[in-house]
Amino acid sequence: MPTHEQLKTMADKLRIHSLRMTTAAGSGHPTTCLSAAEIMSVLFFAVMGGNDEFVHSKGHAAPILWAALAEAGLIPREELAGLRRVDSVLEGHPTARMPLVRVATGSLGQGLAAGCGMALAKRLDRAPGRVFVLQGDGETAEGSVWEAADYAVQAGLDNLALVIDANRLGQSGPTRHGHDLAAYERKFRAFGWEARVVDGHDVASLAGALAQGAPGRPLAVIARTFKGRGVSFLEDREGWHGKPLGAAELERALAEIGPADIELPSAYSPARPSFSFRDFSAGEYAPGDMVATRAAYGKALLALGRADGRVVAVDGDVKNSTMAEEFFRAFPGRAVEAYIAEQNMAGLALGLSAMGFVPWVATFAAFLARAHDHIRMAQYSGANIKFVGSHAGVSIGADGPSQMGLEDLALFLAMPEAMVLYPGDAVATAKLVREMARHVGISYLRTTRDKTPVLYENGEEFPAGGLKVLRSSPADRALVAGCGITLHEALKAHDALSRRGVAVRVVDLYSLRPLPEAELARHAEECGGRVVVAEDHYGGVIAGLVAGVVGKVASLHVREIPRSGTSGELLALMKIDSAAIVAAVEELLDDDPS
Amino acid sequence: MPTHEQLKTMADKLRIHSLRMTTAAGSGHPTTCLSAAEIMSVLFFAVMGGNDEFVHSKGHAAPILWAALAEAGLIPREELAGLRRVDSVLEGHPTARMPLVRVATGSLGQGLAAGCGMALAKRLDRAPGRVFVLQGDGETAEGSVWEAADYAVQAGLDNLALVIDANRLGQSGPTRHGHDLAAYERKFRAFGWEARVVDGHDVASLAGALAQGAPGRPLAVIARTFKGRGVSFLEDREGWHGKPLGAAELERALAEIGPADIELPSAYSPARPSFSFRDFSAGEYAPGDMVATRAAYGKALLALGRADGRVVAVDGDVKNSTMAEEFFRAFPGRAVEAYIAEQNMAGLALGLSAMGFVPWVATFAAFLARAHDHIRMAQYSGANIKFVGSHAGVSIGADGPSQMGLEDLALFLAMPEAMVLYPGDAVATAKLVREMARHVGISYLRTTRDKTPVLYENGEEFPAGGLKVLRSSPADRALVAGCGITLHEALKAHDALSRRGVAVRVVDLYSLRPLPEAELARHAEECGGRVVVAEDHYGGVIAGLVAGVVGKVASLHVREIPRSGTSGELLALMKIDSAAIVAAVEELLDDDPS
Repeated sequence: MPTHEQLKTMADKLRIHSLRMTTAAGSGHPTTCLSAAEIMSVLFFAVMGGNDEFVHSKGHAAPILWAALAEAGLIPREELAGLRRVDSVLEGHPTARMPLVRVATGSLGQGLAAGCGMALAKRLDRAPGRVFVLQGDGETAEGSVWEAADYAVQAGLDNLALVIDANRLGQSGPTRHGHDLAAYERKFRAFGWEARVVDGHDVASLAGALAQGAPGRPLAVIARTFKGRGVSFLEDREGWHGKPLGAAELERALAEIGPADIELPSAYSPARPSFSFRDFSAGEYAPGDMVATRAAYGKALLALGRADGRVVAVDGDVKNSTMAEEFFRAFPGRAVEAYIAEQNMAGLALGLSAMGFVPWVATFAAFLARAHDHIRMAQYSGANIKFVGSHAGVSIGADGPSQMGLEDLALFLAMPEAMVLYPGDAVATAKLVREMARHVGISYLRTTRDKTPVLYENGEEFPAGGLKVLRSSPADRALVAGCGITLHEALKAHDALSRRGVAVRVVDLYSLRPLPEAELARHAEECGGRVVVAEDHYGGVIAGLVAGVVGKVASLHVREIPRSGTSGELLALMKIDSAAIVAAVEELLDDDPS
Repeated sequence: MPTHEQLKTMADKLRIHSLRMTTAAGSGHPTTCLSAAEIMSVLFFAVMGGNDEFVHSKGHAAPILWAALAEAGLIPREELAGLRRVDSVLEGHPTARMPLVRVATGSLGQGLAAGCGMALAKRLDRAPGRVFVLQGDGETAEGSVWEAADYAVQAGLDNLALVIDANRLGQSGPTRHGHDLAAYERKFRAFGWEARVVDGHDVASLAGALAQGAPGRPLAVIARTFKGRGVSFLEDREGWHGKPLGAAELERALAEIGPADIELPSAYSPARPSFSFRDFSAGEYAPGDMVATRAAYGKALLALGRADGRVVAVDGDVKNSTMAEEFFRAFPGRAVEAYIAEQNMAGLALGLSAMGFVPWVATFAAFLARAHDHIRMAQYSGANIKFVGSHAGVSIGADGPSQMGLEDLALFLAMPEAMVLYPGDAVATAKLVREMARHVGISYLRTTRDKTPVLYENGEEFPAGGLKVLRSSPADRALVAGCGITLHEALKAHDALSRRGVAVRVVDLYSLRPLPEAELARHAEECGGRVVVAEDHYGGVIAGLVAGVVGKVASLHVREIPRSGTSGELLALMKIDSAAIVAAVEELLDDDPS
């Protein structure tokens, strides 16, 4: 074990790196690194072993993370000079471009939830070691921290330790609690945590507080620190957040800190998980049977759970609506009840994915918006998470707009690498769950509340990036693209138009990303370029995708705020039902009867 | 004052209404109404006066809210039978379609933040009365509750009272704490609240606990209740969440409860706020000067603050980045530091709006995703809130993707009634702040971090729903639409193409909703139908809007996950810079040289 003097010297070395790196980059947050120097020194060079995990929740202090990894021998020291450069993986805030990072941070207050997921993963694997999360004091105001604090106690995560770098100053002024560390202590104790207050610049106190946790409950070490510590003109001063030193200031600062010549070994050795796919049969259905796609999802998840012991279900007290409940009954050890705390639900999934589990996260599509920032950040972690949103659109009916997922597709389509799937029946759902299981990355499945008829034979395949042609003839004069609930409206519209002598082609656009661009373009052309897209969502996002491929389309989407009513009344009121599709086709033909 | 016996009878009358309404509707949540019957009776008929406000955070218990409003004489009793019908304003969860509702609920854990905003509004107005929030126990797991709990103490809101209806059962099983009411008590006390635990079915205890708060701090009354209370086969039973009784079950239940013949007066009388616009001059600039639009926003907000005493600024510890800081210095009494807790920031704004203040809420565009669910719900409250997102897009540079707003436009464009504005220079910013101030509803302004040249004369007008033509000639062979940072790239592309003898028209698409459809269509036609849209955002959402009007467009948007680098490097790497625009125009002309 290194001496306290050595750890203090290493802390200063991390300070020097952080100051040099940010000055070289011309931007960054040196002072928030300086407050954490002793904490990082103690964690990386005294406390953490080869089985331990680290989450750097205060992502703007990225330089000191890069510095610690370099001193730990995990990054060549010369790479530190690349901080924030476009050709470096040492970004301004940690992302998975740097292969040792599995939890990207920079949106504050998210690290603890991921840490909970990692600690839970260790429990599931009966694996040794602890998970350490370094969090700022300012970010402790984020509600997701308290969602995670609740969860850690619920799960008895005594392999989890949170260190709060309470440096008193936020970006634009003092934090809410400043140096009232008793306030943090009271809160964590009330939530059921072991809480210890220490001098965060005293390596002996830090090492003592972090050496071991408390049986049966998580540990919070609240460290009193000073922003800019170690440099007289920075320490505890306002106005220095996110500002690198100029060259002359840097020289003065380095002179104050002194040489800090030291090298220490570190046992910390994070590794990326690998994922493999185990094939399974996700359920069979009889054409014409009435089955909600959410029910087909529940059945497929259960089958997947049987095939693959790495699959974990995470739910937010709606498992009897998302239909994850059968999985919960069959595999209680791999079923995580996150309660009504969707941010933590997503963060838990990130931590589980970082440790090689495959989380399937389900709630009402509307409530995924609650976790939007966590979902957005998960894409920068290179996570392998499957999100499932039930109760999509106005077709849920009487519960009213608060329960209707009308922005979930916009959310996931604004993530460039996310797979986005929207099945129209139970067979498609089963096959698309298989596609998601096979895919490594973030994917989204949108399911429908109401029962709808089974359309497909069980042998039908649904590759990501494909589409299905459900009605087709050489005489087709318009293309109608539907998905989910509107696919059934499109089929009704086809029949109504057929009775009037108008042939239309109907396609099931079950794969929104990847989008079947070439197939879509071909069908549109074969139908005279007349295209109608009907979607149970705000803003016409599917129409926007289609228009990008085929040109102008008639977009039927939810254009005003809906209300309570029956499913059929609302589809009609919002003009996304079969009658609206018929009218749109007729208008296209009136405008261009050729 | 009514007697305790009368209040008990009224509680039963509210039970009867709730059961009858949900059975008539064929859906809804009767058992969660039954647990709250005594609380609602005491609040509406004993505690609340004409100056008090009520927020129904447990929105799925809407029937008992409608019942209480009917018994209070504020809704005709016969309207109760319309619950959840498409022609009724009594929706499945409360929305502002019912004019007495100013805080729509149904996404859980949001009411307390709004209650904080209303209590703060009373402080700002030096108005009497208290704000009461009824919250379920399950939703107490939401982090936004703890963000609000922190804020209420910070602001010393002793005019705020929270009642937790701790009925032990969530949707899919028991809540995390069940009937361990001491757990809630510990938490609220640790956060600095006065906390009182009572029997929630004992009207005397409830009336006593609610009669007055504690000086200087908010009050939490934690009420031990039973879901389904008063009906033997429902009370404290699992499996009844969200299920109405059948006709025979209803008869049995009503027989158990008895007649409950009573009428009581209520002093509760909520009112909708009205808003008026006071004109102001939002700032003048010299063409060619380098000014960040976020700086122009700060200047405009300050000027607006001088003109209109109802304007409040709300910020999340980034006021020196959003540039709201000048307002904070000038009007500390109307400046709300919400700290790093964006959900509560949005919820506070909703409460302020509900009381007739006009909140301007700013943070990094990326972090508005943290409040997505609260922002989404605000549209169902009929709120008048101005959101401002700074640091939009990859052009922020070295901080990396976590700090880049790349999904904010998708978020706001998925709100059908939201105004969405994106200024290209300081003059446009000043004028668009004025447009937002004039507009009643939800609106969004997207600002840029970097300084960009002033393009417009101060006399230029920027009506919502308009566009600006910056470069135009009869020889134009393509239309290039930019906004914000890409407008400047479009101008550079124009010059580069001009040197090659290719004339293109450049429009500033500063108004994304309302979209200038007719003008866009005309310009596209005049340019031969060749349209390039460049946007610093994921997914091509602006291109999707434009394609809806003009047909196929060449969409330049952020198609992969960006990284740290300089602004110029990233615009180039993501292919949304002037060179990419030039290439896109040339490709369009190659494909179709006519």
